[in-house]
Amino acid sequence: MTKMMIGAAQIGGIQRAETREEVVARMLALMDEAHDKGVTFLAYPEMTLTTFFPRFYVEDRAEFDHWFETEMPNAATAPLFARAKSYGMGFTFGYCELTPEGQHFNTSILVSPAGKIVQKYRKTHLPGHAEFEPERSHQHLEKRYFLAGDSGFNVVRNQGVLMGMAICNDRRWPETWRVLGLQGVQLVTIGYNTPSQNNLSSDEGLEKRLYHHELSVCAGAYQNSTYAIAVAKCGTEDGNHMIGGSIIVDADGFVIARAQGEGDELIVAQADFATCDFGKSTVFNFAAHRRVEHYTKITTQTGVEAPE
Amino acid sequence: MTKMMIGAAQIGGIQRAETREEVVARMLALMDEAHDKGVTFLAYPEMTLTTFFPRFYVEDRAEFDHWFETEMPNAATAPLFARAKSYGMGFTFGYCELTPEGQHFNTSILVSPAGKIVQKYRKTHLPGHAEFEPERSHQHLEKRYFLAGDSGFNVVRNQGVLMGMAICNDRRWPETWRVLGLQGVQLVTIGYNTPSQNNLSSDEGLEKRLYHHELSVCAGAYQNSTYAIAVAKCGTEDGNHMIGGSIIVDADGFVIARAQGEGDELIVAQADFATCDFGKSTVFNFAAHRRVEHYTKITTQTGVEAPE
Repeated sequence: MTKMMIGAAQIGGIQRAETREEVVARMLALMDEAHDKGVTFLAYPEMTLTTFFPRFYVEDRAEFDHWFETEMPNAATAPLFARAKSYGMGFTFGYCELTPEGQHFNTSILVSPAGKIVQKYRKTHLPGHAEFEPERSHQHLEKRYFLAGDSGFNVVRNQGVLMGMAICNDRRWPETWRVLGLQGVQLVTIGYNTPSQNNLSSDEGLEKRLYHHELSVCAGAYQNSTYAIAVAKCGTEDGNHMIGGSIIVDADGFVIARAQGEGDELIVAQADFATCDFGKSTVFNFAAHRRVEHYTKITTQTGVEAPE
Repeated sequence: MTKMMIGAAQIGGIQRAETREEVVARMLALMDEAHDKGVTFLAYPEMTLTTFFPRFYVEDRAEFDHWFETEMPNAATAPLFARAKSYGMGFTFGYCELTPEGQHFNTSILVSPAGKIVQKYRKTHLPGHAEFEPERSHQHLEKRYFLAGDSGFNVVRNQGVLMGMAICNDRRWPETWRVLGLQGVQLVTIGYNTPSQNNLSSDEGLEKRLYHHELSVCAGAYQNSTYAIAVAKCGTEDGNHMIGGSIIVDADGFVIARAQGEGDELIVAQADFATCDFGKSTVFNFAAHRRVEHYTKITTQTGVEAPE
């Protein structure tokens, strides 16, 4: 079976005062709609359960521990797992994870149709900054509230398909896509919360950010011959606007479904994972064409080292 | 000085019977036009001096040595070097290189306004195949006639700007861009000869190939905060059609100049290389955001290794 109906459940803004239970109810409504449309794998955004709190600064990080989940599933999300299982649907969503050791991660999980968590991913490329920076039009404190992920990018076979996860800013980094591609990935899921305004440049607003988002996802999909689902939490959260633009992209890098609005919205597409094979065996036949001896700097060097 | 008028000199088809001298005359006409428009750095395509002969099969490769240059500059190209020097113009073009040791490379050079070759690049990612393959609608024998380049991707300062070269298929590989990006590149030049039809898929014609071309160049420029000039040899060569679509792209990944036709055509744009700094110091601040410990597979693994 190489064909599958896949869906992206875009979520509109979640206000600070909303409870997990209220959010899960919205997620369930989209899951029901997805099931009605024949979807058997559904992707929700990054940090689906809460507002995007890294826009707020608190001196004592512990004050924000209430945005984190200490177990998964938990009481609030159990209905999601149960409903998906009843539908025989696989799904993925992102949340903030607080480990027993007290570590904070921006995490997503992949859940099989049997309701089992088959993979956990912790966001690698945290954007933003760790301290309050008054020159910014708004704060983006992911480096304050999270540790950089320790999981790396891993591919797992779920529902017969080689799947991998990435989160938000990861999609701008071709390394993300390539590490997944080198594991034969056929479907990359990416949840995101992307402010509509660059907080250091009044020049970079909604239109430019939507372009960069889509450019990165389409290039990553094309260059690794993989489907991708990129799904937003978007619209306005407590007065802060985030881009929509949820898309499903085929293995040729073409957008095959696109959200129209900035609220809760389901988009679906029929994927045929057999179509990944053509690119993987021709122009992007890695074994035939990659020249790793010329890529050394990619792994030996983190920052720029420019010639004189 | 961070501003510079840059140009792409697209070259229409070169027929098998055309001489180097005839081609150089066409190149000089575009150089004159570029000078009139204030251009001080001009990029010509891959394999500018000859037809794209890898579409032809010969059993004895030596029969095709006449497509290669054994020295550079040589009698045919000397006028190009002289004219550029008289204009104070830097330039780059591609040609087929036969070394004294008998090695064949798909090469490009970067020439300073003083007429000095300041860098040579040998194409890394050779597409296609080495033997005649009858199932293909046309042959693409780059792996027959060339060795994979041994130069790697290197950045050099020319006219105050950090420049790097890539050739054709290299542009589809994010590794190309990243290795240059890690050297602080501000301008990537890419010449290409891209057949309009995928020779293994009747499904992939001109429109799709133009999309993939532009997607790759724009993503590479954006993700490394660099300008790019991608310049075609295009149109019809002895009945074989190649895509046009020459573009100049800014450091934000936006097309700022685009060729309209498929013949000899100059496009120009004002570059401001200071604008590279914003991306390089924020979203693509490599030192702050890259996580090389999770990129290992990119350099330790050539082909795909998929999980069960």
